[in-house]
Amino acid sequence: MSNGRTGRRKGNPDTRAQILDAARDAFAEVGFDRATIREIARRADVDPALVHHYFGSKDKLLLATIDAPFDPGKVLPGIIGPGLDGVGERLVRAFVGVWDGPAGARGSVLLRSALSHPLMLRLLREFLISRILRVAVRELGVEIDHAPFRGSLVASQLLGLALTRYILKVEPMVDAPPEAVVAMVGPTIQRYIEGPLPDSAP
Amino acid sequence: MSNGRTGRRKGNPDTRAQILDAARDAFAEVGFDRATIREIARRADVDPALVHHYFGSKDKLLLATIDAPFDPGKVLPGIIGPGLDGVGERLVRAFVGVWDGPAGARGSVLLRSALSHPLMLRLLREFLISRILRVAVRELGVEIDHAPFRGSLVASQLLGLALTRYILKVEPMVDAPPEAVVAMVGPTIQRYIEGPLPDSAP
Repeated sequence: MSNGRTGRRKGNPDTRAQILDAARDAFAEVGFDRATIREIARRADVDPALVHHYFGSKDKLLLATIDAPFDPGKVLPGIIGPGLDGVGERLVRAFVGVWDGPAGARGSVLLRSALSHPLMLRLLREFLISRILRVAVRELGVEIDHAPFRGSLVASQLLGLALTRYILKVEPMVDAPPEAVVAMVGPTIQRYIEGPLPDSAP
Repeated sequence: MSNGRTGRRKGNPDTRAQILDAARDAFAEVGFDRATIREIARRADVDPALVHHYFGSKDKLLLATIDAPFDPGKVLPGIIGPGLDGVGERLVRAFVGVWDGPAGARGSVLLRSALSHPLMLRLLREFLISRILRVAVRELGVEIDHAPFRGSLVASQLLGLALTRYILKVEPMVDAPPEAVVAMVGPTIQRYIEGPLPDSAP
């Protein structure tokens, strides 16, 4: 099967694509937590070391399967590290900053494709839960009651913001100055994170 | 062209479909306001009276083009009529009630298809603006400053709620009791409608 090119093993796009396909199937079928590098390698019919070689870690493999526009694991510590105070405004400012920037176009492609392809939808959900909500809770470092419900409320407002500002392009949300969006949506996020909950909260 | 069936003129599915196609094109190209029944009839190559016959009004024609799960024009007065007080909670309760019910499946289809088809996207935006935001502002009957910005903030939270609860199905938002969602999201909507705005608000 050798075609005489050099560096074939290291850079073969087929192997990389094979691993990505296998990872998408595994993440979608059994979820991010239960999918193992070993199992993904088995499905792709490659050595597990090759998976590490191409992608480094399972986290990064998940980012690659959805062609994530940025790694929230890198952005979240700066937002959450300073503590609960003002976290809502910092989160919205960072969110709008990323989407207003060059990564925004890929974010739109990702969100759209998730909504029309069930496989991408499951991958985006895994990404939201394991790379955003869970990292956020961990970085916060304080005990948050009902963290999953609070996290899903935060996700609802941020995804809706992306939808109206970048995809549906509802006027005047599209051209609203970032600080106007931060001033209005920041307190919402803050309340979802630390505000009182009703007894019926899951 | 007669095929001998009776009632052909009244119930011809081709004519209805032709009008719907023409209306989709017209709404998407020039917007709901500037599209006229006369122009839609011209594009469909039928008499304007037939458009009225099949659809009754331009409002109803827009609902038909997107196969809207319900007519917000009918639901909004009950939510908004009682006035500003508690309007946020009433809006979220009604929204969750509709999506939790049998109309929810069609709502999901609509939202998904809008996100993968540019034509449906433009139609959904026209629907949001002309049938929801504008009707809401009119029903409220009081002067609201920066109503379009406030409306787009409300839309962002409600669309995001639909996305997380019904499409992405983020746990535990999916199974949260409606009243828990109302208690958390209602005050957000209320603040977007009547809360203070920053100077930078568009």
